[in-house]
Amino acid sequence: MEQHLPENSGKQPVKPRTEEEKQKVLNRLKRIEGQVRGIQKMVEDDRYCVDILVQISAIDKALNQVGFSLMERHTKHCVSHAIKAGNGDESIEELMKVMKQFAK
Amino acid sequence: MEQHLPENSGKQPVKPRTEEEKQKVLNRLKRIEGQVRGIQKMVEDDRYCVDILVQISAIDKALNQVGFSLMERHTKHCVSHAIKAGNGDESIEELMKVMKQFAK
Amino acid sequence: MEQHLPENSGKQPVKPRTEEEKQKVLNRLKRIEGQVRGIQKMVEDDRYCVDILVQISAIDKALNQVGFSLMERHTKHCVSHAIKAGNGDESIEELMKVMKQFAK
Amino acid sequence: MEQHLPENSGKQPVKPRTEEEKQKVLNRLKRIEGQVRGIQKMVEDDRYCVDILVQISAIDKALNQVGFSLMERHTKHCVSHAIKAGNGDESIEELMKVMKQFAK
Repeated sequence: MEQHLPENSGKQPVKPRTEEEKQKVLNRLKRIEGQVRGIQKMVEDDRYCVDILVQISAIDKALNQVGFSLMERHTKHCVSHAIKAGNGDESIEELMKVMKQFAK
Repeated sequence: MEQHLPENSGKQPVKPRTEEEKQKVLNRLKRIEGQVRGIQKMVEDDRYCVDILVQISAIDKALNQVGFSLMERHTKHCVSHAIKAGNGDESIEELMKVMKQFAK
Repeated sequence: MEQHLPENSGKQPVKPRTEEEKQKVLNRLKRIEGQVRGIQKMVEDDRYCVDILVQISAIDKALNQVGFSLMERHTKHCVSHAIKAGNGDESIEELMKVMKQFAK
Repeated sequence: MEQHLPENSGKQPVKPRTEEEKQKVLNRLKRIEGQVRGIQKMVEDDRYCVDILVQISAIDKALNQVGFSLMERHTKHCVSHAIKAGNGDESIEELMKVMKQFAK
């Protein structure tokens, strides 16, 4: 079977994220954090299960969008860099592993 | 195509959640909220994309677990109640819709 | 962790499928079988990977639709029957397990 | 929203698949075809819904594995080739689109 990816690889992005890039991702994550608090409120208010589930699947979708945008940036910078440097295989295999985790 | 589930159905759980049930779900949601803040910190620290993606997929998994436990409770109470009352079909179709949203 | 569902439970549908019901599912499965043969042909013809992947994800979607329609029927008949007979919990837990397998 | 990938892009793999590569993918697809026929038989025999669903989710998993192995090969050859040739972005965006379709 496949090995798990480590929690902390010790690696760095080949090209540091600009402040603008960071801010864009942070804004999305803050919105997601707010949505998570929103469903806490729904649970406290004893709201209808299906209404809560609809919100959970909206968060799921938002998280996936953040994930895919990070993955695209990663492929355009880190993976591309490794490919040009002649050692793309390891980088591509790592990318595939993380994709599989996302497709679950 | 299928119609979307409304954001607020105006319905209530047939059997109100006990304080213990609420607390259990809230604890999980607070942990998820903490994980979302954790990845904000990772973005601020310009951490490696794949490390962030591993965390995002962990949140995804935790959210799905909350979702499934809510779905199970919903089926055991609301859907079961509707079935016994002789109007299960509408309730089952609603359940299927929310499941499909989760399976995406 | 969760236990796996058995390959053969030895159980039967509470209400046998009608010929019409069987035929409808069989037609969809035959179409899926044809799609699987279609991608074999694409591989033999050395077609572009992404074109093949688009077809694979179409089959995936078609399979999920068959799955959900079986699940809906199962809930409307077997699960409902168990709930009315007063032993819904086991049936609902089995349903949740199979749903989780689908959501992966 | 995102645009769909075309059914037939008219593109070719940069590096043709070897006979051995083709055979390996074809063997997996033939096994999947056999599994699809297997569930047709289960429907004809009016087998228990959950048993059929377990088989459907096994096919789903097998299909995804074929998909990921094609995706890995595609990234190692076609995408890498495009990146080295200096026009990786288009190729990476196409890869992300097909991944998103798989993650659904």
